[in-house]
Amino acid sequence: MEFNDYDFFVQHADINLYYATKFKAIDLAFYIVGNDGTDLLLVPDMEKERAVRESRVKEIASFGDLGYHDLRKELKDSRKAQAEMLIRLLKTHKARRVGIPTDFPAYLAIPLSQAFEVKVVKSPFLKMRAVKTQKEIEYIGDTSKAIISAFEFALKLLRREKSCDRIRERIENYLYLKGYLASDTIISSGKLSAIPHASGGIVEDHVVMDIFPRSRKHYYYSDFTRTVIVNRNDKIEEMLNAVIEAQEKAISIIREGITAKDVHYTVCDVLESYGYKTLRQKANEGFIHSTGHGVGLEVHEEPRIFENETVLEAGMVFTVEPGLYYKDIGGVRVEDVVVVRKNGCEVLTEYPKRIYLNSI
Amino acid sequence: MEFNDYDFFVQHADINLYYATKFKAIDLAFYIVGNDGTDLLLVPDMEKERAVRESRVKEIASFGDLGYHDLRKELKDSRKAQAEMLIRLLKTHKARRVGIPTDFPAYLAIPLSQAFEVKVVKSPFLKMRAVKTQKEIEYIGDTSKAIISAFEFALKLLRREKSCDRIRERIENYLYLKGYLASDTIISSGKLSAIPHASGGIVEDHVVMDIFPRSRKHYYYSDFTRTVIVNRNDKIEEMLNAVIEAQEKAISIIREGITAKDVHYTVCDVLESYGYKTLRQKANEGFIHSTGHGVGLEVHEEPRIFENETVLEAGMVFTVEPGLYYKDIGGVRVEDVVVVRKNGCEVLTEYPKRIYLNSI
Repeated sequence: MEFNDYDFFVQHADINLYYATKFKAIDLAFYIVGNDGTDLLLVPDMEKERAVRESRVKEIASFGDLGYHDLRKELKDSRKAQAEMLIRLLKTHKARRVGIPTDFPAYLAIPLSQAFEVKVVKSPFLKMRAVKTQKEIEYIGDTSKAIISAFEFALKLLRREKSCDRIRERIENYLYLKGYLASDTIISSGKLSAIPHASGGIVEDHVVMDIFPRSRKHYYYSDFTRTVIVNRNDKIEEMLNAVIEAQEKAISIIREGITAKDVHYTVCDVLESYGYKTLRQKANEGFIHSTGHGVGLEVHEEPRIFENETVLEAGMVFTVEPGLYYKDIGGVRVEDVVVVRKNGCEVLTEYPKRIYLNSI
Repeated sequence: MEFNDYDFFVQHADINLYYATKFKAIDLAFYIVGNDGTDLLLVPDMEKERAVRESRVKEIASFGDLGYHDLRKELKDSRKAQAEMLIRLLKTHKARRVGIPTDFPAYLAIPLSQAFEVKVVKSPFLKMRAVKTQKEIEYIGDTSKAIISAFEFALKLLRREKSCDRIRERIENYLYLKGYLASDTIISSGKLSAIPHASGGIVEDHVVMDIFPRSRKHYYYSDFTRTVIVNRNDKIEEMLNAVIEAQEKAISIIREGITAKDVHYTVCDVLESYGYKTLRQKANEGFIHSTGHGVGLEVHEEPRIFENETVLEAGMVFTVEPGLYYKDIGGVRVEDVVVVRKNGCEVLTEYPKRIYLNSI
């Protein structure tokens, strides 16, 4: 890894550190890479042995190895001692320009910015994560299959269970026992479904089910939404038809080389052609969110599929999830996960989109 | 809430924001409190309605309400636009000194520190969270009961199941179906147990089981560890006896008014009296971690029970978890959760500590 805008990059303990090192930090850890060849994982003393066992990084140091305990006694503050430990380490490497990720914690970011020319940047690992390996695509495919099996289980439940919270609980239990952890699953109906992230209530005319678990083994997410028609409702069905057409049109244009914006505006074009409002028109009802987001070790990651110029690359995995939301009617959404290929894209969550409960 | 060291405090979306506002942010949100009476929850446009429904905060603004979208167009960068939105908002309130939490993200911390006199402090909500209400204690008690029932289930499993990973999976499934989410449960045996956070392997002479789920309903954690003797091993049993004595002695002195250090050093005194080494002696084997940590909406929170002078207050809830770890022998640990009271403490995870699998 070679950086242009800085000589060293310091990653704190989050999913990027896991991605880059394969070490699952409990609380604290730092991964430091430099243009001078530095490739160092820095962990609390107690974690050093586990880091040696689990991480792919060759050079592992403990806080103690770098004089942290004396610094803590001297400065009487563990956070100041951590900052000083990092500053001294970077100085021994003659660092001048240091990159830190946007969410790097303030108690370290501010002292570092006083000691070095600090650049706050998107973590380079975020960018690497956006393009998946074949193995990662298999993992996301595996989670996708589990979601579809849970969704079919939910369709059966929907015949007798009318509490959205209870359906949600049953879906999450089902997935957990199969080895997947779903949190914040959205099951909403009636007018409540006009709030994209709301969940709960009683099953009315239609149900939006948005299920996005991660594997308990390989940790990769997938994300899938279907809108099920329970009782005929012309307005909801018209909205759903427009959303399905917009989603399919968008999926049909996805391939290496086009931009995120091309995908998003394809969705907007179709929805607007039916008279629905979109964010492009500064609407606060209608299509009021982005078209999608990357999926991987996090449920929301790069690339974002919105008004951005991000160029799609083969191996990128993201959702395509147009929706329409009206307070007086309710909301509908259809969501699939796709992998970008050279000449098109592959859908990992293939499943019918027009689902009438009474005709299943 | 009245601040001394700053006039405004800005909390980003984490568990502290949930604690303070009762709004579960998905990605972004800010909670701003000020000595001028400001008490404002700031959320993405799409979340405003849900925030109004769920939060206890009266004044709720969306990013759009504060001109975010124009800023994003002008600055062509959503992070810069967020920083500018916050800076403008704070300036309209004539803010001069602004407090931010230690883990506030760098992309906002650095611009704010250029616009105001910024103090990076422990979130005041962390401190508030350390002292629990009766309701919160009931929640932690509820999770504690679930853990003990899962532990008894695990003891039965241990008669026939020899894979630590499989025992872990069964415990986590058991808890999930009862409404609790356990991640990173530690089931370790033999010499692997000398690494405090390692899990896995085959059941040998003794098993350390460290179980710390949170409720899927009220979100509160509890944390509990027992060391089960499977086959007699004199060294392990001697270590376990010393650890139990150290833990009970420490629990016996806990009451309002003493310090965290008093508790930690009580543990060290007992262990050292048996010739075991502790961190106080800069040991890298023996008792190589702190005595405990607060438990609540996070599994590790305030107060820390280590060499710190934190004065214990009635209503604080934390673990007391001495352990001993030797590479050539293995590790043992015993952990309970206690509530500090005026004249003593109450154990929320009451359960026998000397457990011989063959005499159950």
